Amino acid sequence: MTRDRLDDQLRFTLEIDRLKGVLRRTYLLDGTRRENSAEHSWHVAVMAAVLAEHANEAVDVGRVVRMLLVHDVVEVDAGDTFVYDREAARSKAERERRAADRIFGLLPPDQRAEMRALWEEFEAAETADARFAAALDRMMPVLHNIHTEGRAWRENGVTAEMVIGRNSRIAEGSRVLWERVRALIGKAVERGHLAPAPGD
Amino acid sequence: MTRDRLDDQLRFTLEIDRLKGVLRRTYLLDGTRRENSAEHSWHVAVMAAVLAEHANEAVDVGRVVRMLLVHDVVEVDAGDTFVYDREAARSKAERERRAADRIFGLLPPDQRAEMRALWEEFEAAETADARFAAALDRMMPVLHNIHTEGRAWRENGVTAEMVIGRNSRIAEGSRVLWERVRALIGKAVERGHLAPAPGD
Repeated sequence: MTRDRLDDQLRFTLEIDRLKGVLRRTYLLDGTRRENSAEHSWHVAVMAAVLAEHANEAVDVGRVVRMLLVHDVVEVDAGDTFVYDREAARSKAERERRAADRIFGLLPPDQRAEMRALWEEFEAAETADARFAAALDRMMPVLHNIHTEGRAWRENGVTAEMVIGRNSRIAEGSRVLWERVRALIGKAVERGHLAPAPGD
Repeated sequence: MTRDRLDDQLRFTLEIDRLKGVLRRTYLLDGTRRENSAEHSWHVAVMAAVLAEHANEAVDVGRVVRMLLVHDVVEVDAGDTFVYDREAARSKAERERRAADRIFGLLPPDQRAEMRALWEEFEAAETADARFAAALDRMMPVLHNIHTEGRAWRENGVTAEMVIGRNSRIAEGSRVLWERVRALIGKAVERGHLAPAPGD
Protein backbone atom coordinates (compact mmCIF):
# COMPACT_ATOMS: atom_id res chain seq x y z
CA MET A 1 0.00 0.00 0.00
CA THR A 2 2.71 2.43 1.04
CA ARG A 3 4.54 1.40 -2.10
CA ASP A 4 1.72 2.39 -4.46
CA ARG A 5 1.11 5.72 -2.76
CA LEU A 6 4.81 6.53 -2.88
CA ASP A 7 4.95 5.77 -6.60
CA ASP A 8 2.14 8.24 -7.25
CA GLN A 9 3.63 10.86 -4.93
CA LEU A 10 7.01 10.64 -6.64
CA ARG A 11 5.41 10.85 -10.08
CA PHE A 12 3.73 14.12 -9.04
CA THR A 13 6.97 15.40 -7.51
CA LEU A 14 8.92 14.72 -10.70
CA GLU A 15 6.20 16.09 -12.98
CA ILE A 16 6.14 19.51 -11.34
CA ASP A 17 9.87 19.93 -12.01
CA ARG A 18 8.69 21.41 -15.32
CA LEU A 19 7.41 24.50 -13.49
CA LYS A 20 11.07 25.58 -13.39
CA GLY A 21 10.88 26.01 -17.16
CA VAL A 22 7.75 28.21 -17.20
CA LEU A 23 8.86 31.82 -17.64
CA ARG A 24 6.96 34.81 -16.27
CA ARG A 25 7.16 38.37 -17.61
CA THR A 26 8.95 39.74 -14.55
CA TYR A 27 12.73 39.94 -14.30
CA LEU A 28 14.96 38.95 -11.41
CA LEU A 29 15.96 41.95 -9.33
CA ASP A 30 19.46 41.84 -10.85
CA GLY A 31 17.87 42.04 -14.31
CA THR A 32 19.84 39.07 -15.69
CA ARG A 33 16.86 37.04 -16.82
CA ARG A 34 13.12 36.51 -16.52
CA GLU A 35 11.80 34.70 -13.48
CA ASN A 36 10.30 31.21 -13.63
CA SER A 37 7.14 30.11 -11.84
CA ALA A 38 8.87 27.64 -9.49
CA GLU A 39 11.24 30.20 -7.97
CA HIS A 40 8.38 32.73 -7.89
CA SER A 41 6.32 30.21 -5.88
CA TRP A 42 9.19 29.84 -3.42
CA HIS A 43 9.50 33.59 -3.07
CA VAL A 44 5.82 34.26 -2.31
CA ALA A 45 5.74 31.32 0.13
CA VAL A 46 8.63 32.85 2.10
CA MET A 47 6.85 36.21 1.97
CA ALA A 48 3.76 34.64 3.50
CA ALA A 49 5.81 33.42 6.45
CA VAL A 50 7.41 36.86 6.89
CA LEU A 51 4.43 39.16 6.23
CA ALA A 52 1.53 37.23 7.78
CA GLU A 53 1.07 39.79 10.55
CA HIS A 54 -0.10 42.33 7.95
CA ALA A 55 -3.12 40.29 6.81
CA ASN A 56 -6.46 42.05 7.42
CA GLU A 57 -7.83 38.99 9.19
CA ALA A 58 -6.03 36.28 11.13
CA VAL A 59 -4.70 33.67 8.68
CA ASP A 60 -3.40 30.12 9.02
CA VAL A 61 0.15 30.75 7.80
CA GLY A 62 0.81 27.07 7.10
CA ARG A 63 -2.21 26.90 4.80
CA VAL A 64 -1.29 30.15 3.05
CA VAL A 65 2.22 28.81 2.46
CA ARG A 66 0.96 25.48 1.08
CA MET A 67 -1.54 27.32 -1.12
CA LEU A 68 1.22 29.47 -2.58
CA LEU A 69 3.53 26.48 -3.09
CA VAL A 70 1.00 24.86 -5.44
CA HIS A 71 -0.85 27.92 -6.80
CA ASP A 72 1.02 27.91 -10.12
CA VAL A 73 1.51 24.16 -10.59
CA VAL A 74 -1.17 24.13 -13.31
CA GLU A 75 1.19 26.23 -15.47
CA VAL A 76 3.17 23.05 -16.15
CA ASP A 77 0.47 22.40 -18.77
CA ALA A 78 -1.29 25.75 -19.14
CA GLY A 79 1.75 28.07 -19.21
CA ASP A 80 1.97 31.43 -17.49
CA THR A 81 -0.81 33.83 -18.48
CA PHE A 82 0.35 37.45 -18.39
CA VAL A 83 -2.06 39.26 -16.08
CA TYR A 84 -2.58 42.13 -18.51
CA ASP A 85 -3.27 39.89 -21.54
CA ARG A 86 -7.08 40.00 -21.95
CA GLU A 87 -7.15 37.57 -24.85
CA ALA A 88 -5.30 34.84 -22.94
CA ALA A 89 -7.31 35.55 -19.79
CA ARG A 90 -10.46 34.34 -21.55
CA SER A 91 -9.18 30.81 -22.09
CA LYS A 92 -7.14 30.71 -18.87
CA ALA A 93 -9.77 29.21 -16.56
CA GLU A 94 -10.52 26.29 -18.87
CA ARG A 95 -6.85 25.59 -19.66
CA GLU A 96 -5.97 25.64 -16.00
CA ARG A 97 -8.87 23.44 -14.99
CA ARG A 98 -7.75 20.74 -17.40
CA ALA A 99 -4.19 21.09 -16.12
CA ALA A 100 -5.36 20.72 -12.51
CA ASP A 101 -7.25 17.55 -13.44
CA ARG A 102 -4.15 15.99 -14.89
CA ILE A 103 -1.43 17.20 -12.53
CA PHE A 104 -3.16 16.89 -9.16
CA GLY A 105 -4.64 13.69 -10.62
CA LEU A 106 -1.19 12.09 -10.37
CA LEU A 107 -1.48 12.09 -6.56
CA PRO A 108 -3.23 9.46 -4.42
CA PRO A 109 -6.97 10.30 -4.16
CA ASP A 110 -6.91 11.92 -0.69
CA GLN A 111 -4.01 14.21 -1.56
CA ARG A 112 -5.42 14.92 -5.00
CA ALA A 113 -8.61 16.19 -3.38
CA GLU A 114 -6.74 18.21 -0.76
CA MET A 115 -4.35 19.91 -3.20
CA ARG A 116 -7.11 20.54 -5.71
CA ALA A 117 -9.27 22.15 -3.03
CA LEU A 118 -6.37 24.32 -1.93
CA TRP A 119 -5.79 25.46 -5.52
CA GLU A 120 -9.48 26.18 -6.08
CA GLU A 121 -9.63 28.12 -2.83
CA PHE A 122 -6.70 30.23 -4.00
CA GLU A 123 -8.31 30.87 -7.37
CA ALA A 124 -11.66 31.86 -5.82
CA ALA A 125 -9.93 34.22 -3.33
CA GLU A 126 -12.95 34.20 -1.05
CA THR A 127 -11.47 32.98 2.24
CA ALA A 128 -9.15 35.03 4.47
CA ASP A 129 -6.23 32.65 3.71
CA ALA A 130 -6.79 32.86 -0.06
CA ARG A 131 -7.26 36.64 -0.09
CA PHE A 132 -3.96 37.08 1.70
CA ALA A 133 -2.20 34.56 -0.55
CA ALA A 134 -3.57 36.34 -3.63
CA ALA A 135 -2.41 39.70 -2.24
CA LEU A 136 1.18 38.43 -1.98
CA ASP A 137 1.01 36.91 -5.45
CA ARG A 138 -0.07 40.30 -6.87
CA MET A 139 2.38 42.30 -4.80
CA MET A 140 5.53 40.43 -5.82
CA PRO A 141 5.62 41.45 -9.52
CA VAL A 142 5.03 45.08 -8.52
CA LEU A 143 8.08 44.90 -6.23
CA HIS A 144 10.10 43.29 -9.01
CA ASN A 145 9.10 46.01 -11.45
CA ILE A 146 9.79 48.79 -8.94
CA HIS A 147 13.32 47.46 -8.45
CA THR A 148 14.06 46.94 -12.17
CA GLU A 149 12.93 50.44 -13.22
CA GLY A 150 9.61 49.10 -14.48
CA ARG A 151 11.25 46.85 -17.08
CA ALA A 152 8.44 44.32 -17.58
CA TRP A 153 5.84 47.11 -17.43
CA ARG A 154 7.63 49.09 -20.14
CA GLU A 155 8.22 46.04 -22.32
CA ASN A 156 4.55 45.16 -22.24
CA GLY A 157 2.95 48.61 -22.46
CA VAL A 158 1.52 48.44 -18.96
CA THR A 159 0.27 51.74 -17.46
CA ALA A 160 -0.26 52.95 -13.89
CA GLU A 161 -3.99 52.75 -14.49
CA MET A 162 -3.67 49.05 -15.33
CA VAL A 163 -1.35 48.34 -12.38
CA ILE A 164 -3.66 50.08 -9.94
CA GLY A 165 -6.74 48.47 -11.49
CA ARG A 166 -5.32 45.01 -11.06
CA ASN A 167 -3.56 45.44 -7.76
CA SER A 168 -6.02 47.46 -5.69
CA ARG A 169 -7.44 44.05 -4.73
CA ILE A 170 -4.30 43.58 -2.61
CA ALA A 171 -6.27 45.64 -0.07
CA GLU A 172 -8.76 42.77 0.27
CA GLY A 173 -5.95 40.66 1.74
CA SER A 174 -3.93 43.39 3.42
CA ARG A 175 -4.67 47.10 3.60
CA VAL A 176 -1.18 47.71 5.06
CA LEU A 177 0.53 46.07 2.09
CA TRP A 178 -1.71 47.80 -0.47
CA GLU A 179 -0.97 51.20 1.09
CA ARG A 180 2.74 50.50 0.66
CA VAL A 181 2.37 49.17 -2.88
CA ARG A 182 0.19 52.16 -3.86
CA ALA A 183 2.91 54.53 -2.66
CA LEU A 184 5.56 52.64 -4.64
CA ILE A 185 3.44 52.80 -7.81
CA GLY A 186 3.19 56.58 -7.35
CA LYS A 187 6.97 56.85 -7.06
CA ALA A 188 7.47 54.71 -10.19
CA VAL A 189 5.28 57.14 -12.15
CA GLU A 190 7.21 60.14 -10.77
CA ARG A 191 10.48 58.54 -11.84
CA GLY A 192 9.20 57.78 -15.33
CA HIS A 193 9.35 53.99 -14.88
CA LEU A 194 5.60 53.61 -15.36
CA ALA A 195 3.41 55.56 -17.80
CA PRO A 196 0.30 57.06 -16.15
CA ALA A 197 -1.92 56.17 -19.15
CA PRO A 198 -1.52 54.78 -22.72
CA GLY A 199 0.69 57.01 -24.86
CA ASP A 200 1.96 59.04 -21.89
CA MET B 1 5.89 50.67 14.26
CA THR B 2 4.23 48.58 11.57
CA ARG B 3 6.00 50.83 9.08
CA ASP B 4 9.49 50.07 10.40
CA ARG B 5 8.87 46.34 10.62
CA LEU B 6 7.52 46.29 7.08
CA ASP B 7 10.62 48.08 5.78
CA ASP B 8 12.85 45.42 7.30
CA GLN B 9 10.63 42.58 6.13
CA LEU B 10 10.63 43.88 2.57
CA ARG B 11 14.40 44.37 2.62
CA PHE B 12 14.81 40.69 3.58
CA THR B 13 12.28 39.64 0.92
CA LEU B 14 14.12 41.54 -1.82
CA GLU B 15 17.57 40.41 -0.65
CA ILE B 16 16.77 36.72 -0.96
CA ASP B 17 15.82 37.20 -4.63
CA ARG B 18 19.52 36.52 -5.26
CA LEU B 19 19.03 32.86 -4.31
CA LYS B 20 17.55 32.48 -7.82
CA GLY B 21 21.04 33.10 -9.18
CA VAL B 22 22.83 30.48 -7.07
CA LEU B 23 23.40 27.40 -9.24
CA ARG B 24 23.56 23.86 -7.90
CA ARG B 25 25.30 20.93 -9.60
CA THR B 26 22.08 19.10 -10.40
CA TYR B 27 20.23 19.51 -13.70
CA LEU B 28 16.54 20.03 -14.29
CA LEU B 29 14.82 16.80 -15.25
CA ASP B 30 14.63 17.97 -18.88
CA GLY B 31 18.41 18.48 -18.83
CA THR B 32 18.23 22.02 -20.26
CA ARG B 33 20.17 23.72 -17.47
CA ARG B 34 21.41 23.44 -13.91
CA GLU B 35 18.99 24.05 -11.09
CA ASN B 36 19.12 27.11 -8.81
CA SER B 37 18.72 27.05 -5.05
CA ALA B 38 15.43 29.02 -5.00
CA GLU B 39 13.54 26.63 -7.25
CA HIS B 40 15.17 23.70 -5.40
CA SER B 41 13.84 25.12 -2.12
CA TRP B 42 10.36 25.30 -3.61
CA HIS B 43 10.60 21.72 -4.83
CA VAL B 44 11.64 20.21 -1.50
CA ALA B 45 9.00 22.26 0.33
CA VAL B 46 6.28 20.80 -1.90
CA MET B 47 7.79 17.34 -1.34
CA ALA B 48 7.49 17.83 2.41
CA ALA B 49 3.78 18.50 2.06
CA VAL B 50 3.32 15.44 -0.16
CA LEU B 51 5.61 12.91 1.55
CA ALA B 52 5.17 13.76 5.26
CA GLU B 53 3.39 10.48 5.96
CA HIS B 54 6.66 8.62 5.30
CA ALA B 55 8.59 10.31 8.11
CA ASN B 56 9.83 7.88 10.79
CA GLU B 57 8.30 10.01 13.53
CA ALA B 58 5.31 12.35 13.45
CA VAL B 59 6.43 15.72 12.10
CA ASP B 60 4.92 19.20 12.10
CA VAL B 61 4.55 19.61 8.33
CA GLY B 62 4.23 23.38 8.52
CA ARG B 63 7.54 23.66 10.37
CA VAL B 64 9.27 21.26 7.98
CA VAL B 65 8.01 23.33 5.04
CA ARG B 66 9.18 26.63 6.58
CA MET B 67 12.53 25.07 7.43
CA LEU B 68 13.01 23.96 3.83
CA LEU B 69 11.92 27.34 2.46
CA VAL B 70 14.80 29.06 4.27
CA HIS B 71 17.35 26.23 4.51
CA ASP B 72 19.46 27.53 1.61
CA VAL B 73 18.98 31.28 2.07
CA VAL B 74 22.55 31.59 3.42
CA GLU B 75 23.80 30.66 -0.06
CA VAL B 76 22.97 34.21 -1.17
CA ASP B 77 26.33 35.07 0.42
CA ALA B 78 28.02 31.70 0.87
CA GLY B 79 27.19 30.09 -2.49
CA ASP B 80 26.20 26.47 -2.99
CA THR B 81 28.73 23.99 -1.60
CA PHE B 82 28.81 20.77 -3.62
CA VAL B 83 28.15 17.98 -1.14
CA TYR B 84 31.02 15.86 -2.42
CA ASP B 85 33.59 18.69 -2.32
CA ARG B 86 35.63 18.02 0.84
CA GLU B 87 37.78 21.13 0.50
CA ALA B 88 34.79 23.49 0.38
CA ALA B 89 33.01 21.57 3.13
CA ARG B 90 35.73 22.63 5.59
CA SER B 91 34.99 26.34 5.27
CA LYS B 92 31.24 25.88 4.72
CA ALA B 93 30.08 26.16 8.34
CA GLU B 94 31.91 29.41 8.97
CA ARG B 95 30.88 30.98 5.63
CA GLU B 96 27.27 30.06 6.22
CA ARG B 97 27.24 31.30 9.81
CA ARG B 98 28.39 34.74 8.67
CA ALA B 99 25.78 34.70 5.91
CA ALA B 100 23.03 33.80 8.40
CA ASP B 101 24.10 36.70 10.62
CA ARG B 102 23.76 39.15 7.78
CA ILE B 103 20.70 37.84 5.92
CA PHE B 104 18.43 36.86 8.81
CA GLY B 105 19.78 40.03 10.45
CA LEU B 106 17.76 42.08 7.98
CA LEU B 107 14.53 40.95 9.66
CA PRO B 108 12.91 42.50 12.76
CA PRO B 109 14.46 40.95 15.93
CA ASP B 110 11.68 38.45 16.70
CA GLN B 111 11.60 37.07 13.16
CA ARG B 112 15.39 37.13 12.92
CA ALA B 113 15.57 34.89 15.99
CA GLU B 114 12.82 32.58 14.75
CA MET B 115 14.25 32.12 11.24
CA ARG B 116 17.77 31.74 12.55
CA ALA B 117 16.64 29.07 15.01
CA LEU B 118 14.81 27.23 12.24
CA TRP B 119 17.92 27.30 10.05
CA GLU B 120 20.15 26.10 12.89
CA GLU B 121 17.71 23.33 13.70
CA PHE B 122 17.85 22.20 10.07
CA GLU B 123 21.64 22.27 10.04
CA ALA B 124 21.91 20.28 13.29
CA ALA B 125 19.39 17.66 12.05
CA GLU B 126 18.70 16.49 15.58
CA THR B 127 14.92 16.97 15.85
CA ALA B 128 12.32 14.84 14.06
CA ASP B 129 11.29 17.81 11.87
CA ALA B 130 14.89 18.59 10.89
CA ARG B 131 15.82 14.96 10.23
CA PHE B 132 12.88 14.62 7.86
CA ALA B 133 13.64 17.96 6.16
CA ALA B 134 17.28 16.92 5.71
CA ALA B 135 16.17 13.57 4.26
CA LEU B 136 14.14 15.34 1.55
CA ASP B 137 16.99 17.72 0.82
CA ARG B 138 19.33 14.74 0.29
CA MET B 139 16.80 12.72 -1.67
CA MET B 140 15.99 15.34 -4.30
CA PRO B 141 19.40 15.44 -6.07
CA VAL B 142 19.44 11.64 -6.20
CA LEU B 143 16.06 11.70 -7.97
CA HIS B 144 17.33 14.38 -10.36
CA ASN B 145 20.41 12.31 -11.15
CA ILE B 146 18.41 9.14 -11.62
CA HIS B 147 16.22 10.90 -14.17
CA THR B 148 19.07 12.56 -16.07
CA GLU B 149 21.12 9.35 -16.47
CA GLY B 150 23.43 10.38 -13.63
CA ARG B 151 24.60 13.53 -15.41
CA ALA B 152 25.81 15.54 -12.40
CA TRP B 153 27.31 12.40 -10.85
CA ARG B 154 29.29 11.63 -14.01
CA GLU B 155 30.40 15.23 -14.50
CA ASN B 156 31.76 15.35 -10.98
CA GLY B 157 33.29 11.88 -10.63
CA VAL B 158 30.78 10.78 -8.00
CA THR B 159 30.60 7.03 -7.26
CA ALA B 160 27.89 4.80 -5.79
CA GLU B 161 30.03 4.47 -2.68
CA MET B 162 29.95 8.24 -2.23
CA VAL B 163 26.22 8.50 -2.96
CA ILE B 164 25.40 5.75 -0.48
CA GLY B 165 27.80 7.14 2.09
CA ARG B 166 26.18 10.53 2.00
CA ASN B 167 22.57 9.52 1.55
CA SER B 168 22.19 6.60 3.94
CA ARG B 169 21.34 9.28 6.51
CA ILE B 170 18.02 9.68 4.68
CA ALA B 171 17.01 6.65 6.79
CA GLU B 172 17.27 8.81 9.94
CA GLY B 173 14.36 10.89 8.61
CA SER B 174 12.50 8.22 6.66
CA ARG B 175 13.33 4.54 6.35
CA VAL B 176 10.65 4.17 3.65
CA LEU B 177 12.22 6.87 1.47
CA TRP B 178 15.76 5.56 2.01
CA GLU B 179 14.67 2.07 0.97
CA ARG B 180 13.31 3.52 -2.27
CA VAL B 181 16.37 5.70 -2.89
CA ARG B 182 18.71 2.77 -2.19
CA ALA B 183 16.92 0.68 -4.81
CA LEU B 184 17.16 3.51 -7.36
CA ILE B 185 20.91 3.88 -6.73
CA GLY B 186 21.31 0.14 -7.39
CA LYS B 187 19.46 0.49 -10.69
CA ALA B 188 21.61 3.48 -11.70
CA VAL B 189 24.74 1.37 -11.20
CA GLU B 190 23.23 -1.51 -13.24
CA ARG B 191 22.46 0.89 -16.07
CA GLY B 192 25.95 2.37 -16.05
CA HIS B 193 24.79 5.83 -14.93
CA LEU B 194 26.76 5.65 -11.70
CA ALA B 195 30.22 4.11 -11.24
CA PRO B 196 30.39 1.66 -8.30
CA ALA B 197 33.85 2.94 -7.23
CA PRO B 198 36.57 5.33 -8.54
CA GLY B 199 37.91 4.22 -11.93
CA ASP B 200 35.08 1.72 -12.51
